[in-house]
Amino acid sequence: MSSLSDLQSRLDEASAAYEEFASRGLKLDITRGKPAPAQLDLAADLLTTVSGDDVFTPSGVDTRNYGGAEGLIELREIFAPLLKVPAAQLLAGGNASLTFMTQALTFALLHGTAVDDRPWGLGPHKLLCPVPGYDRHFTLAESLGFELLSIPMDDEGPDVAAAQRLAEDPAVKGMWIVPMYSNPTGITITDRRARELAQMPAAAPDFTLLWDNAYALHHLREDHPDNLDILSLCAEAGHPERAWIFASTSKVTHAGAGVSFFAGGPATVDWMTANLGKVSIGPDKINQLRHLRFFTDSAGVEAHMRKHAEIIAPKFDAVLTALDEGLGSDDLASWTSPEGGYFITLTTMDGIADRVVKLAAEAGVKLTPAGATHPYGLDPNNSIIRIAPTMPTLDEVELAAQGLVACVRLASFEKLMAG
Amino acid sequence: MSSLSDLQSRLDEASAAYEEFASRGLKLDITRGKPAPAQLDLAADLLTTVSGDDVFTPSGVDTRNYGGAEGLIELREIFAPLLKVPAAQLLAGGNASLTFMTQALTFALLHGTAVDDRPWGLGPHKLLCPVPGYDRHFTLAESLGFELLSIPMDDEGPDVAAAQRLAEDPAVKGMWIVPMYSNPTGITITDRRARELAQMPAAAPDFTLLWDNAYALHHLREDHPDNLDILSLCAEAGHPERAWIFASTSKVTHAGAGVSFFAGGPATVDWMTANLGKVSIGPDKINQLRHLRFFTDSAGVEAHMRKHAEIIAPKFDAVLTALDEGLGSDDLASWTSPEGGYFITLTTMDGIADRVVKLAAEAGVKLTPAGATHPYGLDPNNSIIRIAPTMPTLDEVELAAQGLVACVRLASFEKLMAG
Repeated sequence: MSSLSDLQSRLDEASAAYEEFASRGLKLDITRGKPAPAQLDLAADLLTTVSGDDVFTPSGVDTRNYGGAEGLIELREIFAPLLKVPAAQLLAGGNASLTFMTQALTFALLHGTAVDDRPWGLGPHKLLCPVPGYDRHFTLAESLGFELLSIPMDDEGPDVAAAQRLAEDPAVKGMWIVPMYSNPTGITITDRRARELAQMPAAAPDFTLLWDNAYALHHLREDHPDNLDILSLCAEAGHPERAWIFASTSKVTHAGAGVSFFAGGPATVDWMTANLGKVSIGPDKINQLRHLRFFTDSAGVEAHMRKHAEIIAPKFDAVLTALDEGLGSDDLASWTSPEGGYFITLTTMDGIADRVVKLAAEAGVKLTPAGATHPYGLDPNNSIIRIAPTMPTLDEVELAAQGLVACVRLASFEKLMAG
Repeated sequence: MSSLSDLQSRLDEASAAYEEFASRGLKLDITRGKPAPAQLDLAADLLTTVSGDDVFTPSGVDTRNYGGAEGLIELREIFAPLLKVPAAQLLAGGNASLTFMTQALTFALLHGTAVDDRPWGLGPHKLLCPVPGYDRHFTLAESLGFELLSIPMDDEGPDVAAAQRLAEDPAVKGMWIVPMYSNPTGITITDRRARELAQMPAAAPDFTLLWDNAYALHHLREDHPDNLDILSLCAEAGHPERAWIFASTSKVTHAGAGVSFFAGGPATVDWMTANLGKVSIGPDKINQLRHLRFFTDSAGVEAHMRKHAEIIAPKFDAVLTALDEGLGSDDLASWTSPEGGYFITLTTMDGIADRVVKLAAEAGVKLTPAGATHPYGLDPNNSIIRIAPTMPTLDEVELAAQGLVACVRLASFEKLMAG
């Protein structure tokens, strides 16, 4: 690549740049996919859409009392076309889709699914995890006793051939997938790859796609991919119950005080509703009514999401610009350029992601721990870093990205020198 | 008891009274423990306590974003003294204590408890169920794979000797109990009985009291029993982690849009928090802030509960008066006179509860199905009827109670004639 003295001088340069950055004593955090206060402000008016004397839905439900496990029909009708599912097959729930995921997986462990009533928990149970992926998916599944099997992701989606080989084991019960603006790479699954997943043979009759559409509506650009109708693709492929769809308004209205959604095939929705009835008194319908009144219709949701994009697209651009300017001319790293979602994935040279994260921490930039994007926290190449640019201010994001660049440069030249 | 002709004439009388009531074509429902709209109105101002520009807690938390699995400390401090637990050992959660129950039991099944890390789900697992009891407890536990073992209740609480005998089986993991104004009898456990439960030997090292304090604050009269400090009783008995306490504001503010609570021993609260962190992004903190601002302090909660009592005490009195006037002079039935809670239990002659429920349905009065107060829906004596007088108007409750009396009289004389 370069001569040794050349390398040494570039390492010295990188070291000096890092020291300069570290000496500023900054405290920056680009670890979690949290909305910024300015984004939360966008839904300020939602909080007062329901007052004490105006608590009924258009169809006459008193939202203050018990009942209605499936959620308000009027809200489901707003989100159904956005998520490309029939309203009758969409449930509106509590404040977190993670709860729906926990519930659906727990029901399957205890009672089996709508397709096969043999409880998953009776034998070994495994899930396929496209990597890099979402740490909370892995933690949840591991806590429920699933063995996690990594499969590769590329820029069209998960490696279906790899998935299919592993799914020859009937203990493989399904696969996590974030189909739109994947956490953390930001890629969106192609129509072709989705069809292949819908059709894919699997030994478990109830092999399930855990279709976490967390960023279904979270476009950064005017031109953007559209959501897939995965339920129809699965039905056409003869697997009408294969996809369990999860979504929420956590990053649409208020994180932690939004509304979650679950959709699936007709039998799956019946199965979910029946099981929910045993463990839940139903969702917070008042909060669902707030959402209904705030958005009015599907177009209202889309208009609202454009306001989010105005706030966060510049932050993504700031990171991409810093990476391009700081790393673009060398062959030190690569990164994704998402059209939506909450994350950018940076791929360093093999073996240095943890060193970059450590250097960054010492220089005042908190990054998601290396490995977090892989099951059991183990990135075999030690090269994946997840960047979450939404929460800090634009100035902070620019600084953090500069710091990150300095760390990647230093760790890269250290490694090249070490040889 | 009486001569046959005497009985026949009383049966004829009862039959005529029943026909007269049935001919009115009423439609009444005293099945579920739901608050009446007038009770829900009491918390009308809660809905607008948080507006768009005023979303921070006193300690500076932005309630709109992720984080804080344990719930808002200021709200926990309000409810801790009311529930007789330390605020540090009280978690504030989502909209339903049933969810906390499901989560705690599921964690124990998967991971064991704070006392013993052997998962309950690895072997047979059983729960003691004082009867009559709460149908949702039974349904939930059954859906989680627990075998349900009935033990008797009397007017001081569960039969501890019976519990102790059954708890010699290490598969018996715990016991349901509604300590205050039990569902459905309305009795409150005595201090002595609670001490015995705290001290009781059990083969399972993590034998647990599922202490569902659903009606902790729901007094009907100015003079009322006080909540027990069960955590201290358990600690004194050498079982500091024995009690898991559940409560909620479902019948304080809005049913389905309230705040739930979980408390336990120090290790149990750590165990619960750690496990919740894997399956939840945290509770709806905005709704917790609404509750905090609405109540201000513990006295605010107590003042609020007195307004509930003003609305529902007359409904309880109407039922008790009707039962007394209609059944008091014969030896046909007995009933509880609760000082709080949501239910009255009527005990008929053996073998006719289902007949009473059927007669009532045909006469336009919907009652909770006979047997619902027992595991698997099986009341061995077929004699327990749960009356829920809160939801209908006072006039409707009076009518329903008159109808119920007519049904009990008819079914009783039918049985006496047959018998």
